[in-house]
Amino acid sequence: MNDQELLRPLIEPNTTKLILVVMDGVGGLPVNGTSELEKANTPNLSLLASSSACGLQVPVAYGITPGSGPGHLGIFGYNPLQYEIGRGVLEALGLGIHLTENDIAIRCNYATVIREGTKTVIKDRRAGRIPTDHSKKITEMLQEKIKQIDDAQIILLPGMEHRFALVLRFSHVLEKGADAIEDTDPQKEGLEPVTPLPSNVSAKHVLEIALKFVEKAAQILKDQEKANYILLRGFSSVPKIPKFNDVYGVRSLAIATYPMYLGVAKLLGMDTVKPEGGIAQEVETLKKNYDNYDFFYLHVKKTDSNGEDGNFEGKCRVIEEFDKNLPDILSLNPDVLVITGDHSTPALIKGHSWHPVPVLLKSRYVFGRTSASFTERECLKGEFGIFHSTDIIPLMLANGMRLKKFGA
Amino acid sequence: MNDQELLRPLIEPNTTKLILVVMDGVGGLPVNGTSELEKANTPNLSLLASSSACGLQVPVAYGITPGSGPGHLGIFGYNPLQYEIGRGVLEALGLGIHLTENDIAIRCNYATVIREGTKTVIKDRRAGRIPTDHSKKITEMLQEKIKQIDDAQIILLPGMEHRFALVLRFSHVLEKGADAIEDTDPQKEGLEPVTPLPSNVSAKHVLEIALKFVEKAAQILKDQEKANYILLRGFSSVPKIPKFNDVYGVRSLAIATYPMYLGVAKLLGMDTVKPEGGIAQEVETLKKNYDNYDFFYLHVKKTDSNGEDGNFEGKCRVIEEFDKNLPDILSLNPDVLVITGDHSTPALIKGHSWHPVPVLLKSRYVFGRTSASFTERECLKGEFGIFHSTDIIPLMLANGMRLKKFGA
Repeated sequence: MNDQELLRPLIEPNTTKLILVVMDGVGGLPVNGTSELEKANTPNLSLLASSSACGLQVPVAYGITPGSGPGHLGIFGYNPLQYEIGRGVLEALGLGIHLTENDIAIRCNYATVIREGTKTVIKDRRAGRIPTDHSKKITEMLQEKIKQIDDAQIILLPGMEHRFALVLRFSHVLEKGADAIEDTDPQKEGLEPVTPLPSNVSAKHVLEIALKFVEKAAQILKDQEKANYILLRGFSSVPKIPKFNDVYGVRSLAIATYPMYLGVAKLLGMDTVKPEGGIAQEVETLKKNYDNYDFFYLHVKKTDSNGEDGNFEGKCRVIEEFDKNLPDILSLNPDVLVITGDHSTPALIKGHSWHPVPVLLKSRYVFGRTSASFTERECLKGEFGIFHSTDIIPLMLANGMRLKKFGA
Repeated sequence: MNDQELLRPLIEPNTTKLILVVMDGVGGLPVNGTSELEKANTPNLSLLASSSACGLQVPVAYGITPGSGPGHLGIFGYNPLQYEIGRGVLEALGLGIHLTENDIAIRCNYATVIREGTKTVIKDRRAGRIPTDHSKKITEMLQEKIKQIDDAQIILLPGMEHRFALVLRFSHVLEKGADAIEDTDPQKEGLEPVTPLPSNVSAKHVLEIALKFVEKAAQILKDQEKANYILLRGFSSVPKIPKFNDVYGVRSLAIATYPMYLGVAKLLGMDTVKPEGGIAQEVETLKKNYDNYDFFYLHVKKTDSNGEDGNFEGKCRVIEEFDKNLPDILSLNPDVLVITGDHSTPALIKGHSWHPVPVLLKSRYVFGRTSASFTERECLKGEFGIFHSTDIIPLMLANGMRLKKFGA
């Protein structure tokens, strides 16, 4: 596995342009003999693959299915076993907030409870999956009524159905371990909410505020038919993580249409832009900003969404849509272009999977002529073989002539 | 390399059935252009390989020839550089004893010594490789006469020719380091037996008892023409090692015809069964127990034995015998079936070797159509590439839908 500490002293400034396209969950599995990438009609990708360095990258380890956090950390060159983006942080980023080192982020569920004497018993952990509209309305009402508890600003981010995020924003940087708090969600109906026992003073303080919030909110929600309680999950703070531009000596821009990916990019210190529309608008945005940055991360979401839905044909259509936009990217003539995914999402599995992900790297300094198309089985024949996702950035930098020789 | 600590929190219960077939030493080398696997007539293996995920696994590291201990630990997902099964333990397991944490196991050689004044000089470290019958008789005689020394029960296990094993069974769990004792065998004739100098109190106590045993035995054996002394080697105790079922969340059964492999499986906490007969009887045993377990380790011994003997054709015949029994295994329709070896044993080398070992994995969630047969050169084209043996179990669990997503 590559080590950022190995790279740092080797970084060399250059004016080369590097583009990393992440087609979320692009890797698939055969259905009736062909995978999504094999089935889709992709003349431009095939042509590019035949002259590119190809391979398959393992996001975390053989057999391990990555979440979006570890998947992205890996392709950005951060060891996903070393750095962790907590569930609360990922949820909050996905709802569009910019988090700082002063924040604790928590995933929340509206729940239905009944009171039995002094007991609070959970009847429905998801409050009957109340409609998003209603959920949004009561979240905004809570925000209106609860803005500060002790030394923490209360920030509420409406989500889908019974879900929303709570951010406790303190006026100071939090100590390590302040987020080491178990869920209050017992994961089962018929039980009482769990009262976690934090093992350090900072976490104890954070929990006190969070529980005060739950109490105040329950008071406000007490007449709601379903959403009359709140369960807390995934307490987490922003990880201490080196900045992308510092480690790799680049000026980077992230282009994505979904907040979570922009959020992860922001965590790493990238500039971000959120085009309205689909792949064409993302490529348009790339072109517009091409002179102002030298590293571009462009995220394509819908390959993953269709995979998650088990929509094999839908995923093929998104791949084809990308293929149509590829000549526009190539017209920029970048020094290095990588196309890959953060993990596989086979329609057959209807979810993320552990399978290695196809990679293609276009540059002047590759062999090519190993792989006839950008598919799992063709990339297997490529000059990169099967390698670790954290090696992608070093290969991009090397092909961009941005790494000095190691040793004399 | 995969880490059991990474897997543990991801384990998810499921009812899927996983079968791991280990054809001992199955990997070979070309003689007149074809390896054993290439020469053998294996229509069933070829058909299966063509629809399976294939690859080559490295048991320890490039260039490293594993013994049976490290070979098996690796395919069971235990880093063979982290866990070690000592030589005494392996020898004793091979002779059929079940070892506990109270035991010290020692490999013993009958030797011929002559007395020169106060000196004991080794004339033959192997006592002229006395016949196994005679060796067995005197070992049984010693056992009859020596049953306990101080706080240790003395257990003797007859072996082949001049070899046998001694187990010191204490009434308490031994301290770490109690087996850190050098051999008394100087590895050379004409020298005196070595008197080791243990560096801790527990080892000193163990050594005292072992040396008392040697003294008593030498007294009993003093009129033997050849076997009149005993040399001690490979002092070892059972390693502290996580239990297979705990780490992977399975109920496992080991099926093997040789004691050593059942012994290793027992060390890991597997249930074991020893069918009488060959491969057909092992498969019969698999079928009989299929409903009571969800993970099966089936060991085929004779591929290795023939390789060790340099019997190329004999090894081909064993591979063909397995091929004939394969449809019977497939008729169980397991969710995941892996076929591999613990190391290579090329007839050309007449011993274990460092060569990566072919692997195939059958499941719903693979690509296949990369490899036309189960051979070294065809598996090289497979979707697993060349990978580490410790990744086999994670891949089996993933394909058995027994691993949760890592990270959010």
